[in-house]
Amino acid sequence: MSNATPYDLENEKIISEIKSRGVKTVIIQAPDGLKAHLKDLWMELSSAGITVYISADPCYGGCDLADDIGRKLGAEMLIHIGHNKFVRTAEEIPTLYIPAPYLVDLSELIRRSVEFLRSRGVRRVGLVASLQHVHSLKNFVEGLRSKGFEVVVDDATGGVVLGCNGEAAKRIAGSVDIILHVGGGDFHALGVALSVEIPVYIADPYKGEIRDVERLKRKTLARRWWAIQEARRAQIFGVVVVAKVGQFNRDLALLIKRELEARGRKALMVVAEEVNWERLSSLTFVDSFIITGCPRISLDNQEIFGKPVLNSEDFKELLKVMEG
Amino acid sequence: MSNATPYDLENEKIISEIKSRGVKTVIIQAPDGLKAHLKDLWMELSSAGITVYISADPCYGGCDLADDIGRKLGAEMLIHIGHNKFVRTAEEIPTLYIPAPYLVDLSELIRRSVEFLRSRGVRRVGLVASLQHVHSLKNFVEGLRSKGFEVVVDDATGGVVLGCNGEAAKRIAGSVDIILHVGGGDFHALGVALSVEIPVYIADPYKGEIRDVERLKRKTLARRWWAIQEARRAQIFGVVVVAKVGQFNRDLALLIKRELEARGRKALMVVAEEVNWERLSSLTFVDSFIITGCPRISLDNQEIFGKPVLNSEDFKELLKVMEG
Repeated sequence: MSNATPYDLENEKIISEIKSRGVKTVIIQAPDGLKAHLKDLWMELSSAGITVYISADPCYGGCDLADDIGRKLGAEMLIHIGHNKFVRTAEEIPTLYIPAPYLVDLSELIRRSVEFLRSRGVRRVGLVASLQHVHSLKNFVEGLRSKGFEVVVDDATGGVVLGCNGEAAKRIAGSVDIILHVGGGDFHALGVALSVEIPVYIADPYKGEIRDVERLKRKTLARRWWAIQEARRAQIFGVVVVAKVGQFNRDLALLIKRELEARGRKALMVVAEEVNWERLSSLTFVDSFIITGCPRISLDNQEIFGKPVLNSEDFKELLKVMEG
Repeated sequence: MSNATPYDLENEKIISEIKSRGVKTVIIQAPDGLKAHLKDLWMELSSAGITVYISADPCYGGCDLADDIGRKLGAEMLIHIGHNKFVRTAEEIPTLYIPAPYLVDLSELIRRSVEFLRSRGVRRVGLVASLQHVHSLKNFVEGLRSKGFEVVVDDATGGVVLGCNGEAAKRIAGSVDIILHVGGGDFHALGVALSVEIPVYIADPYKGEIRDVERLKRKTLARRWWAIQEARRAQIFGVVVVAKVGQFNRDLALLIKRELEARGRKALMVVAEEVNWERLSSLTFVDSFIITGCPRISLDNQEIFGKPVLNSEDFKELLKVMEG
């Protein structure tokens, strides 16, 4: 661990992997929040005579690999920081995944979690975490058990949740009172909350606070239902294929197109590297969009979208609503 | 021309090209302002049994081809609307360029131009236009000549200017008093103004007005000089390769890196699909950026950039300033 960053970027591992493969040029990808911490890694690699490209594009997950542009640049290896392997098919260039755990001590946050859960009368706690914090679950388990809580972590997933996958919470929700998510921001915790019926709290390592996501969950679900109801009246749908390698679902998009056409609607196939309202809104003649890439794009941006935007799960609901 | 759009999208030509090639799937690309006008083309192609993908990503020029994603989607042809061929090397898939001329009658704008130029005492007028309006230059020439003006249009370029290329103005600037640019917005006219020393006026077909770009030119040049002067103090430079096919200049970027290192500076290679301040600003440890893609990115966004951002022409000036 470098003094400059609270994340373990495993510089030694990266350098030894690069050297053992005889690689001269690499491309590095990281989520925006981690980019500021890439200085030491870059400087160490440069001193070792490696040419380093850093991707400035946003990177939201392991679904989003800069392997194609890496190949174009002549990079022989992709260093993908902050996420685990997600794309199962072969990558364009060999890829090293660096999870970048957050190394700051969380004893004080564990103490606060105990206090908070006691004040809520909770007995049985399910634990999940985003990838940067999953190594801390061991300490959370010990800390909570020592204070008399029953604590469950899902074995199969190790407790890790992704933005699009709350499996680690779903699998244990039946046997606990609440889910405690260890991680910053609301993004991952909202994903968890949307996949279970029980309350979800956030233990936030950056703010040092415990908070819930119920209000955000209710708002998100309300907007989701508004979008589905509104989409019923749409005549022209834009079915969006997202170009990112792990979000590319052309065949699903073509299937949705056929389903729409079978119901007398028109479907325009749309493709985008990056999906946001600025881009979709230029297609003024489309009444509603269905995004076949990341399911969170529609859930998290409904307030910004000027038209109903659905994901493929929402589309299934829309079909029911259309038929009902 | 369809009733719905003032641009000639040449639907018949597109459809006959597609049919004669036996193409079943196409991808269409257009600048944001033209996307709203793609409905008829899409519907005609759909009726003919063609699967159509429309790219929702912004498209700034012929340098920016969605051929790669088209190939991934299985498209056998790219319809690129609003620009001429720019990339000289072979495209990934066969590409049809549709210039999309604006078909609205401009006689009133020509009348206003005559009035305006007379009031300024102008005698010799050089004419240029953006691609959508270049077909109107013939009428401008006739209209102005019939009122006694000397009028010059560059033969070699036909008077067309691109955002990055004011050649059509440069070649005639020595033999006229002013340049009149026919086109909307300030973008193309600013490019023209930056490439010549004489006054540049805009005849705007959308607003129906004549205006100058002198203030904008002075502001832009002042900010450019600020950026070059500031960059002199930078220790860590980010040298940005832009991934767009016609802006991809890896070798130039590597050359700039070597030039910087020869002067004791550090250079981080950066790559981006799309360059904006949000993306560059995540690299907090970089003091100044040099963009090797579109030269307009740095010129047009200097007010938004929080650090000095140069293009490769500015970089040449920076080297002089460093040595001076």
